[in-house]
Amino acid sequence: MRKIYAIGIGAGDPEHLTVQAIDRLNRADVFFVLDKGAAKADLVRLRRQILDRFVTGPGYRVVSPQDPERDRKPLDYRAAVADWHRLRADVYERLIRDELGEDETGAFLVWGDPSLYDSTIALIEAVLARGTVTFDYEVVPGVSSASALVARHRTTMNQIGRAVQFTTGRRLADGWPTDADDVFVLLDAHTTFDQFVDQGMWIYWGAYVGTPEEILLSGPLDEALAERIRTTRTEARERNGWIMDTYLLRRPQ
Amino acid sequence: MRKIYAIGIGAGDPEHLTVQAIDRLNRADVFFVLDKGAAKADLVRLRRQILDRFVTGPGYRVVSPQDPERDRKPLDYRAAVADWHRLRADVYERLIRDELGEDETGAFLVWGDPSLYDSTIALIEAVLARGTVTFDYEVVPGVSSASALVARHRTTMNQIGRAVQFTTGRRLADGWPTDADDVFVLLDAHTTFDQFVDQGMWIYWGAYVGTPEEILLSGPLDEALAERIRTTRTEARERNGWIMDTYLLRRPQ
Ligand SMILES: C[S@@+](CC[C@H](N)C(=O)[O-])C[C@H]1O[C@@H](n2cnc3c(N)ncnc32)[C@H](O)[C@@H]1O
Ligand SMILES: C[S@@+](CC[C@H](N)C(=O)[O-])C[C@H]1O[C@@H](n2cnc3c(N)ncnc32)[C@H](O)[C@@H]1O
Repeated sequence: MRKIYAIGIGAGDPEHLTVQAIDRLNRADVFFVLDKGAAKADLVRLRRQILDRFVTGPGYRVVSPQDPERDRKPLDYRAAVADWHRLRADVYERLIRDELGEDETGAFLVWGDPSLYDSTIALIEAVLARGTVTFDYEVVPGVSSASALVARHRTTMNQIGRAVQFTTGRRLADGWPTDADDVFVLLDAHTTFDQFVDQGMWIYWGAYVGTPEEILLSGPLDEALAERIRTTRTEARERNGWIMDTYLLRRPQ
Repeated sequence: MRKIYAIGIGAGDPEHLTVQAIDRLNRADVFFVLDKGAAKADLVRLRRQILDRFVTGPGYRVVSPQDPERDRKPLDYRAAVADWHRLRADVYERLIRDELGEDETGAFLVWGDPSLYDSTIALIEAVLARGTVTFDYEVVPGVSSASALVARHRTTMNQIGRAVQFTTGRRLADGWPTDADDVFVLLDAHTTFDQFVDQGMWIYWGAYVGTPEEILLSGPLDEALAERIRTTRTEARERNGWIMDTYLLRRPQ
């Protein structure tokens, strides 16, 4: 039977790979690498580095299909998202069915932890549900960008006995979640933390965490720090052609 | 200068150690192992296994001090917690100052990810703030029990574009957090999920995740499943003398 691994590879630092991830890398015949956008070249390079460093056997294959383009200005938003999801599942189905022999093993190299704001598991499940190809699969957890961020800042996710929330920039724009005192923000294309300046909060911000380009900034979130993060962010994005940043907002107890 | 590592060792599966964690283990002269309660013997054994397996050099030391007892029925709750925190900081200060030579490196082996419901970082910071001993320290992130749990269940933490909250059993007892659709519950001495039976939720539950004793249960949270988890939990705790369990509650969108 075909076998699939969804392997969390950490969010930029190859040293964050686990022993289990390395073991599973070494059982795979084929690696599936799906990246998109401006970061693509850099992220593919990092995955190549991981394979070069940790795969000891010879002769693996790497398949990097085109990720379907998403309609960014659809008339019907829900239909467009469903369409896009279906097109992506088509790609995953083709990979598993056509790029893998009956007894072979394929591995998806998943950024960070596969469980956090990543669609690999949902897409693998969608392929399974179609019933057009049978396979077994396993998820290998990884160190998320959130864990990496707070480790570098030497702080915790939660305050003692309090709750912490993971959310997106878009949702944070609707306001502070009432039941949490710490909020991790991923996928923030704007600097939504701006809305929380001068409210007694702390921010722990990081871009390209774990990579040689890593930038860290933290402190009480006043206008000066917000401005510094905005400027740093813009300059870094121009310099690298893309940016990946995340932050923890803390409301101290 | 003294050097301290707070090393996340994963939540039970030695294969969840990262390359970075193994590297730092191999730089340490002394390991500090602080566990308490019924689980102590088993958890200390797991840490010994990790050291045996991953530390290649000879001649390290292991120090396992008594963790101060906490007053469980104090007259003044806040004062008692502050007292207990101070006593624990005393222990950490002694470890770093007295168990470590001037140029030596010490490592705290921290369960799961040091950033999630763990006091090691706060205690190291408390010792630093006292100014009685100078040292440098680094935090090494790890795979948390939450990441390990969802990987075993082959599901994600969040639903697409939605928020996820990490909280404690005690806080969940106050009600469902309004802004999150998925909630991870750690440190739940009772089975607080009982409050959410027959409300259209799913539960992904696990005990001893990542260890040979691992137990997983999941499904729509009706009374039958709640009862099954309660029974399983009670039996497992009796069999092993202790239990460590966590769960994700999902309100499907
Ligand atoms: C699609 S999500 C995937 C998250 C990933 N599964 C994880 O566990 O970190 C991508 C978002 O993660 C965050 N991110 C991922 N890697 C990062 C890094 N090295 N530094 C800063 N942020 C990062 C950014 O907020 C980015 O928009
Ligand atoms: C003090 S917290 C520490 C959490 C840890 N830092 C982590 O990252 O998982 C302890 C709680 O974590 C959860 N936990 C830790 N290890 C676990 C395991 N192997 N299986 C199930 N739950 C676990 C339980 O809810 C337990 O009460």
